Amino acid sequence: MMETVAYYNGKISEVADMMVPLTDRGMLFGDGIYEATMAQHQTIFALAEHLVRFKQNLAAVMITPTWTDETLTNLLYDLLSRVDNESYMVYWQATRGTGPRQHHFPTNAKPNLMVMITPMSMSRERQTRAYQVRSELDVRSGLADIKTINLLPNVLAAQRAQAEGVDETIFYRLDANHQEIVTEGSKTNVHFIKAGQLITAPLDQRILPGIAREHLLTVAQRLGISVVERYFTITELKQADEVFITSSTLMAGRVQQIDHEPVGYQDEQHFKQLQTQLLAEWEAETN
Amino acid sequence: MMETVAYYNGKISEVADMMVPLTDRGMLFGDGIYEATMAQHQTIFALAEHLVRFKQNLAAVMITPTWTDETLTNLLYDLLSRVDNESYMVYWQATRGTGPRQHHFPTNAKPNLMVMITPMSMSRERQTRAYQVRSELDVRSGLADIKTINLLPNVLAAQRAQAEGVDETIFYRLDANHQEIVTEGSKTNVHFIKAGQLITAPLDQRILPGIAREHLLTVAQRLGISVVERYFTITELKQADEVFITSSTLMAGRVQQIDHEPVGYQDEQHFKQLQTQLLAEWEAETN
Repeated sequence: MMETVAYYNGKISEVADMMVPLTDRGMLFGDGIYEATMAQHQTIFALAEHLVRFKQNLAAVMITPTWTDETLTNLLYDLLSRVDNESYMVYWQATRGTGPRQHHFPTNAKPNLMVMITPMSMSRERQTRAYQVRSELDVRSGLADIKTINLLPNVLAAQRAQAEGVDETIFYRLDANHQEIVTEGSKTNVHFIKAGQLITAPLDQRILPGIAREHLLTVAQRLGISVVERYFTITELKQADEVFITSSTLMAGRVQQIDHEPVGYQDEQHFKQLQTQLLAEWEAETN
Repeated sequence: MMETVAYYNGKISEVADMMVPLTDRGMLFGDGIYEATMAQHQTIFALAEHLVRFKQNLAAVMITPTWTDETLTNLLYDLLSRVDNESYMVYWQATRGTGPRQHHFPTNAKPNLMVMITPMSMSRERQTRAYQVRSELDVRSGLADIKTINLLPNVLAAQRAQAEGVDETIFYRLDANHQEIVTEGSKTNVHFIKAGQLITAPLDQRILPGIAREHLLTVAQRLGISVVERYFTITELKQADEVFITSSTLMAGRVQQIDHEPVGYQDEQHFKQLQTQLLAEWEAETN
C-alpha cells in the first residue's frame, strides 16, 4: 500500500516524489482545470457529477481531453486501489500541455493529466466546528465560475483568514447601490436560513457551481425546506437564523462569526437536518 | 554552449529537460510572480528596473525572496554565459514554494526560483510588421497590475487573436456610461498619437506597469512629445493618427487594424521617432 498516490501522464509515485516538466503550462500560466472530491472504502463520492463538471470546464477553456469519462474513472479507481480503505481527497487536474512559453496554445498540444490522492477525513471535528469567517471584496476574474488553477486571489484570501485565525474568507462584490453582495467563499459556497427558508446565491459567472451546493438544494427540497436562489448582502447574512458554508471536502459547516460579529445559531433544527442528510448521502454511497 | 538554459532551485539544464515537483504551488494555484526581458551580447536589458518590479510584485503577494538583487543578478548572468552572444528572452519566476495542496501558505515555505533563457530576437520583421489587433471585454482579476502567473484570461485572449489570424487582443472595460475603456493588451500596453500628443492609460489595478511603457514615456519627453495619461475608448483608438503596442520583448509595434477596421498610419514621423529611440536604447545598452 502507498501513503499517497500521484499520477502524471502514465507515471505513478508518492505525491511528494512526482516531477513534471517546467514547461507544463500549469507552471507558466495556470493554464488548467481541476476537480476534487472525497473517497472512502474504495468509492469516490459523486464521481459522475464531478466528471460532468470537469468536462464542461475543459470545454470552456478549450482543452480537448484525450481520455473519456470511462478511462478516467478506471484510472482514478486503479490509483485509489493503491491506498488502503480509509478516507481520501481525490484531486485531478488537466493542463493544456507542455511547450514553449508563448500565450497562445501550442500546436498539437496534448493535455497533461495529473491525479493526487491524499489522506483526508470528514472528521467529527470538521463537522461540528463553529466556523468563523471574514469578508473581503471579490477581485477574482470573470472566469470564477470555471474551476481553473488561476487561484491566486483565493490563495491570498485564504491566507488572510489563516492570519486572522479564522476559517474562511467570503467574497462580496459591490452592486450599483454600493451594497455588498455575497458571491462565495475562497473555497466554499455560502448559504443562510431565514424564517425556515434556505437562501443561496444564483449561479452566475462569479459563482463556482459546487457539487455540495447542488446536493444541498436537492436535500432541502426532499426535506420540504423551500429554497430561494437570489443575491443577498453581508448584512442579511449577519441577520440570518443560520449561516453555513459547503464544499465537496467538508459538506456543511455552521458559521458562528462573520468579521468577529456573532451570527446565526438560531435554527439548529433546520441546519442539522440539512447537514445530517448530506453526511448520510456520503456514508450511504461510500459504505 | 547550451541551446537554452533552465534553472530551478540550483539545478541547471536545457529548458525542455527541466523537471519540477508536481506540488510546486505554481502547478496547483498559479501561485507565483514572473519577469521577462531581452538580452544580447551577454547583457540583460533594463535589468535594474525588472528587478525592482519583481521585488514589488513578490511583496504584493507576500512571497519573501531568499535571494537579493545582487545574487539574482549574478545568477542570471552566470546562466546567460552558458549560451552564445546572440539575442535571448530572459524569463524568471518565483513561486511560493512546494507543499501539500491547501490554499493558505505552507508553514515555512521557501520560494522556488526558476529561470528560462531561450533564443528570441528584436527582428526587423517584428519591428516593421503592420500589427492587427482585436478587442474584447477585460475579464481579468483585480490583480492585473501584478505580474502573476494567473494568466488564463490572457492565454484565452491571445489564442482568440491567433485563431482570427491577428497579432494581439486588446482589452476594454465598460464604464458607468457603457463606454469601452481600453485597459491594455493580453501581453502588451496600448498607446496612441493624436494631433502630435502621446496618449496612454494611467496606471491602475487593470494595467501592468510595463517597463517598455516607462521607457516610451521617457523617450517621448526627451523628444518633446507631450504625454497625457488618461482613460480612452476603443472609438478614440479607431480615430487616432497612430496606434501602437509596447512590450519588453517587442519595444513598439505599429497597429494597422483593430477589429478588421483600418486605423492609424497617419503620423509616421512621430511613431518612427519613438520606435527608433526605444530601439536605440536597447542597442546602446546591449552592444
